[in-house]
Order: sequence, then structure tokens, then C-alpha cells
Amino acid sequence: MINLSIPGPEDVLDACRRLAGVAVNTPILRSERLDRLVGASVHIKCENLQRTGAFKFRGAYNCLSRLDRQAYPGGVVAYSTGNHGQAIATVGRMLSIPATIVMPNDAPAVKIKKARENGAEIVLYDRNRQSREEIAAQIAARSPVAVVPPGDDPLIIAGQGTAAAEALAQIGAADVTTILVPCGGGGLAAGTCLATEALLSPAEVWAVEPEGFDDTRRSLASGNREVNPALSGSLCDALLAPTPAELPFTINRRRLSRVLTVSDLDVLRAIRFAYDELRLVTEPGGVIALASVLRSPELVRGGNIMVVISGGNVDPVVFKEALDLDLGAGPVDHAA
Amino acid sequence: MINLSIPGPEDVLDACRRLAGVAVNTPILRSERLDRLVGASVHIKCENLQRTGAFKFRGAYNCLSRLDRQAYPGGVVAYSTGNHGQAIATVGRMLSIPATIVMPNDAPAVKIKKARENGAEIVLYDRNRQSREEIAAQIAARSPVAVVPPGDDPLIIAGQGTAAAEALAQIGAADVTTILVPCGGGGLAAGTCLATEALLSPAEVWAVEPEGFDDTRRSLASGNREVNPALSGSLCDALLAPTPAELPFTINRRRLSRVLTVSDLDVLRAIRFAYDELRLVTEPGGVIALASVLRSPELVRGGNIMVVISGGNVDPVVFKEALDLDLGAGPVDHAA
Repeated sequence: MINLSIPGPEDVLDACRRLAGVAVNTPILRSERLDRLVGASVHIKCENLQRTGAFKFRGAYNCLSRLDRQAYPGGVVAYSTGNHGQAIATVGRMLSIPATIVMPNDAPAVKIKKARENGAEIVLYDRNRQSREEIAAQIAARSPVAVVPPGDDPLIIAGQGTAAAEALAQIGAADVTTILVPCGGGGLAAGTCLATEALLSPAEVWAVEPEGFDDTRRSLASGNREVNPALSGSLCDALLAPTPAELPFTINRRRLSRVLTVSDLDVLRAIRFAYDELRLVTEPGGVIALASVLRSPELVRGGNIMVVISGGNVDPVVFKEALDLDLGAGPVDHAA
Repeated sequence: MINLSIPGPEDVLDACRRLAGVAVNTPILRSERLDRLVGASVHIKCENLQRTGAFKFRGAYNCLSRLDRQAYPGGVVAYSTGNHGQAIATVGRMLSIPATIVMPNDAPAVKIKKARENGAEIVLYDRNRQSREEIAAQIAARSPVAVVPPGDDPLIIAGQGTAAAEALAQIGAADVTTILVPCGGGGLAAGTCLATEALLSPAEVWAVEPEGFDDTRRSLASGNREVNPALSGSLCDALLAPTPAELPFTINRRRLSRVLTVSDLDVLRAIRFAYDELRLVTEPGGVIALASVLRSPELVRGGNIMVVISGGNVDPVVFKEALDLDLGAGPVDHAA
């Protein structure tokens, strides 16, 4: 089912119609304290409150609901460090489509358990020695199943774009100056770019990456898809793609305005901020756009911005690190 | 400003109009896993996402927006273990009404700091040796300020009722079978009772109290306002009223259907459940109604229920206790 045709704004609107009444119309939260700290009107789009706890549900449903079941009676196979796999497993159950999830053997046990609870078959692999793409391709070669990549699919990208489309409609598309989204392979960023076009919004789209995993930033600068030097070493497990996905990159290089990076400490501070001020549970990769706004408020000062929190599936060990932070010093308080 | 006239359903509707565009229309969240565990359709009304992180904002705004400023040029004084005080301080700033908050000297430092940031004057007292009601009364006696009690005021009760009124409109008032709310002094329960009458909902209203602080349960049984044996000793700091407030009790004794109690362990499990499954930060007193549903699902099985999460201002030390729970055994998993 590999399909590398480039989706357009109309595909996001189509996905919005398909997801209506199925995906959660997630709320926009505001915080007076956040607005004061940043010096901007900040709208938080809470995709951590989406089904499965992440925006990935949107792309998964948009894609699987259009699966050619006669061509793929064996269903679908997905490779995922977490949220994409959970989404495919959940949507597979909803639509009675068999799902196989290729997961790294160091994935949190709870994520493996949850996928199994949804009836998915789990194939584990060694993140440092095996290629998840190859394993998925091998499965697809020996049985009639469709590979559902996390980013390189027009229906996935269009589905992810519905989060921003929904938020632009909630806030007022003409009024938003900047949208900041987390960036791993780039599917959410690409979908968000298409959403601004679909809703005729003048908003710039900015992507945020973890420090040391700024492949999209470097790729936009060079014009080629650059590779990250490592596949681990950041708290943001959901964003550790080896390189920008091909299809999202063709959209992002044309429309993405800027790429920012933040550190693990910035991310922990943002998790803590979301706990204290928004009463939201957020995961490192999910809260990274908020982290960038708290770290560099001068970049968005005076704006009317939208920040996507893309997921909330976080290991308690990591969450406790955020709760243990000494908030007496550091950029967040400094910015106040 | 002590006013003990009993509010009616029309006062809740009036408060809804006053709060429109001011209070957050907080979302209703669903969880398939929660529905499966409980065997009911469970709608979570997220008042932890309300301004100030608790439903108390509603009553505070409804009350202060109608303050007779000529009679009370000194503004308002409130006594509060936390959320009511934060709400009065915040609304005072919004409406430019001077606010004095009487807080126990063992209140979390962050709550004292937040109230001061909102421009409130803080008066500390010793929870075990002084009466907060008397201190507030003394302040009111020597200056032209109005006492705003947490429950014993018709505008406060009507304001608190808007949370349930809003939720009934979101879910469909005719379809809800049971509403479960946290109960301390009883203001939220009373307002919720009025909301069901205002929206002609057949829903029963159930209140949930901490074990050992079941004054409302015993008061409904005896017909008199019974007193709790202690003022501390539960995680649910927001619910430790000495006795049911007078005005809410006149409503609750007529309309409240049932009172349940849960343990601190039940509450911690519910905080953890909300973290894992709803991606919400909840406080012990705020999550107690969810805790009762998880502990005793047989009581609501087959129903279409609404559970109010009333607040999310929780000490990180307590939250970490929930994150450290061993989920291998216990009622929650047993119920699955």
C-alpha cells in the first residue's frame, strides 16, 4: 500500500469529515500565567486528550478506514516506538482489521500490553541491530498485509493535519500568527502545513526537535534529508526518527517556516509547567513545542500562537523527574 | 453579606448566563477502558481544567460579580484551605475587588504564593487552635468587607451548580442516570442538585466523602448536621469541612440520593488511573468521585453516569505516591 503521492489541503478537509464523531474534538486550553510568561496569547491544543493519548489516532483512522480490504485481507502492519503503534492497534480493533505492530524490545512493557489488549500481534526487534522498516517489509512480502508507515503516507499526513485544522477553526484561522508542533519524522508538521492552507490561515508553522536530533532543521538548511547521528539519547522517545520521512519532507521544505530545538531539561520543565498550570499529563516528545515557547518567549512575543501538545503517554519514572525539579531557578522563572 | 436564603434552579441558570465567556466550558472526557472497567457509560466533567484549577472559580465569580461595592468598599474576605481562596483571589483581581484570604499556616507554600501573585492579602492562622470563621468575622467587623463563605451563600451554590448544568447540556440532560460529585461542605453537591432541577434531568445526585469524614452521610441519616471527629487525617485536604454547611445541607437533605465513602488508597489509585488513562492531573479531593466509581462499579453498572473531577491542584509529593503504586493487585485491576 506504499503510496507516495503528495497530499493537498483538500485531503485534510476530507480527513476532517471522516474523523467527525470518531476522533475527540480536543479542547484548546488557555493559561493567564502562560500568557504573561510568554508575552503572547497562547492556545494549547490538547492532543494528549485524544483517543489513545496522542494525535496519532487521527492519521491511523484516516488511513485504515480507507484500506482496500480485498487487496489486504491480512490487515496492516506498522512499526512504531509507541503512539503510532497504539493508534493502529486501537483503530484495527475498531474497524475489525487485523494489526501487527513491530516494536523495539526496549519499549515500555505497558505499551506492549496495551497493544496486545487491543488484539494486535506484536513483533519485537532490537533497535540497535535491526531495521524496523525491513522487518515490516518482510512481513508484508510474505502475507497480504499493508504497511502503514508513521509518516510516509498521504492519508496519514492528512489525518494528522486535522488536529491543526480543528484548532484553527476553534481559535479563528485568520487570527493565528504561529503554530508550533513537535517534529520527529515530520508527519504532524506536514499535516499542519496543509491545514493552514486548507483553512486559508496566514499562520507560520514552526517545528520543534530535540537537541541532537535536529534532522529536519539541518535538512531544510541543506535541501537534502539529513540523518541523525544516533537513534537514542533523548527523553523524547516519540521523536527519534532516523531522518525526515520522504513525503512529509516534500511538504515541509516548501511550507515550514522555522525549526527550533530544545534540551531534555527544557522538556522536563515544560512537563512540570503543564502539571502545575494546565493540570495535564504530557509526554516529553508531546510537550516539546510548549518547551520551546517557555525557553524562547522572545521569538513569539506579541503573537497569537497555537501550541500543539501531541501526546501524554509518559513513563512514571520520567514524570517523577519533572516533579522533582527544583523550580527556584532556571529559564522559566527567569522569563517571568 | 451573609445571606442564607435558599437558592433555586433558576439561580443556577442565572449563574450560567453570568459565567458565559468567563469560566472555561470544561470538556467532557470519555475512556473506553473506564467504560469497560465500570460497565457503564462514564462521562468525566473536567473541572480540574477550570480557571484556577478547580470548580471554585464558578461560585467565586458568580458571587463577586454581584457584590454591592458601595456597601463593601473594602472588598471581600474568604477563609479557605486552598481552592476557594485561590478562586476569590483570582476573581478579585479580575474584577478589581480587594481580597483578603484567611489560610491555615500549614497550607502549601505554592498556594500562598499564588494568592499573593493575584494581589490578595493573606492572613495566616493555626488550624488546630484558631477558628477561621471567627478570624474572618473579626476582619469583617472592623472594616467594610464582605465575608464570602465557601458554601453558605446562595450565589456560591448557584455558581458551583453551573458545572453540572453545563455538563448535562453537553451530555444530554434527559439521558444521565447518576451524577457523582466530591463532597466537603456540600456546596458542589447542592449546586448539582439544583442543576438537575434546572435542566429537568432525572439524574440522581450522589456525593462522595473521604472515609472518616462522612459528616454529610451521617447528617442525611440523622437529619441533623453531624460533626467530623477530626479536621485532618485524610489526603483529601479540600474536603475536610468540620460539618455540612447549613445552606447546602437544606438542599442536599431534600434532593441528594446517596453518599459514598472511599479510602486514601482508593483516591491514590484514582489519581493514577487519571494519569494513565485520561492524561489528567487531579487532586485527592477532586478525584474522589472517580475513585468511588472505580471502587464500587457494581453500584452504577449499566448506567449513563457523569463524574465530576472537581480540582487538579495537587502537591507533587502526593502525586508521586500515586505514581509509585504497585498496580499489580487491588480493586481497580480486580474489577477488570
